[in-house]
Amino acid sequence: ARPRVGYFYTGKSSTQLLSESIKKIKVNDFKSIPVVVNENVTVYDAIVTMFLEDVGTLFVVDNDNLLVGALSRKDCLRASIGKQDLNTVPVHIIMTRMPNITMCKGDDLLIHVAEKLIEKQIDAIPIVRERDNGYEVVGRITKSNITKAFVSLFNED
Amino acid sequence: ARPRVGYFYTGKSSTQLLSESIKKIKVNDFKSIPVVVNENVTVYDAIVTMFLEDVGTLFVVDNDNLLVGALSRKDCLRASIGKQDLNTVPVHIIMTRMPNITMCKGDDLLIHVAEKLIEKQIDAIPIVRERDNGYEVVGRITKSNITKAFVSLFNED
Repeated sequence: ARPRVGYFYTGKSSTQLLSESIKKIKVNDFKSIPVVVNENVTVYDAIVTMFLEDVGTLFVVDNDNLLVGALSRKDCLRASIGKQDLNTVPVHIIMTRMPNITMCKGDDLLIHVAEKLIEKQIDAIPIVRERDNGYEVVGRITKSNITKAFVSLFNED
Repeated sequence: ARPRVGYFYTGKSSTQLLSESIKKIKVNDFKSIPVVVNENVTVYDAIVTMFLEDVGTLFVVDNDNLLVGALSRKDCLRASIGKQDLNTVPVHIIMTRMPNITMCKGDDLLIHVAEKLIEKQIDAIPIVRERDNGYEVVGRITKSNITKAFVSLFNED
């Protein structure tokens, strides 16, 4: 039987086709703009930035604009119920610091970044570009971006 | 040409097959256990519960164990940089309250819940069961659960 016009036969099962569709999705297809703060700003100012920019994770950079850490809502909440003064403590004291930051590149597969988010139990991963002395932050991928990718698979046609 | 053994021909395009795979996934397939607190606990105790249970959203119930609100890390962070005393303010003062809570049922399609998470810009949705006077919380769906579903689509075969 010849396939009807408008359909096509690839000789592949549906789960194979599914895997292949997902394998085409790159980080760059669903990335968001990163929000960065200098390592010397106070935790209070970082929290205000989180609310103003409506993000759950800030990336922390040094004076050369290179990635030195990440700060989540969870980190800030922990600090805020602690004994430290949010108005004087700089973010580099409470942030998760390099080299313990999971990073990715814009042309990485989104599925691999999704696996890292689950495995490391984190909310956001910075998209970086390598520089002489470190990494510049050029984007971010969060579980919201993965959720949008999931929804887009369904609405593709 | 007759399809080779081990493959099958359904007369459908790959995007149709993709949509159909996703349409089979129900909320119950990827749900997590909900963490609930009584509406009269203090914000401080709620934050401690978030850390102990390692969740980003608590669901708030009344003395009949019926859903009355939701409390996110963002709500708690906002309260913690405010002027209120976290040790005395009860969660019902700062929570998002019914009827402004987006809910779902265990046999809803996961894709529809994913769309709601994006549309409402929230992190978690309670899975509820209807009772005479309200709703009982029986589970939760977060962007982490959607991310796991996305990863599982790729690893299916």
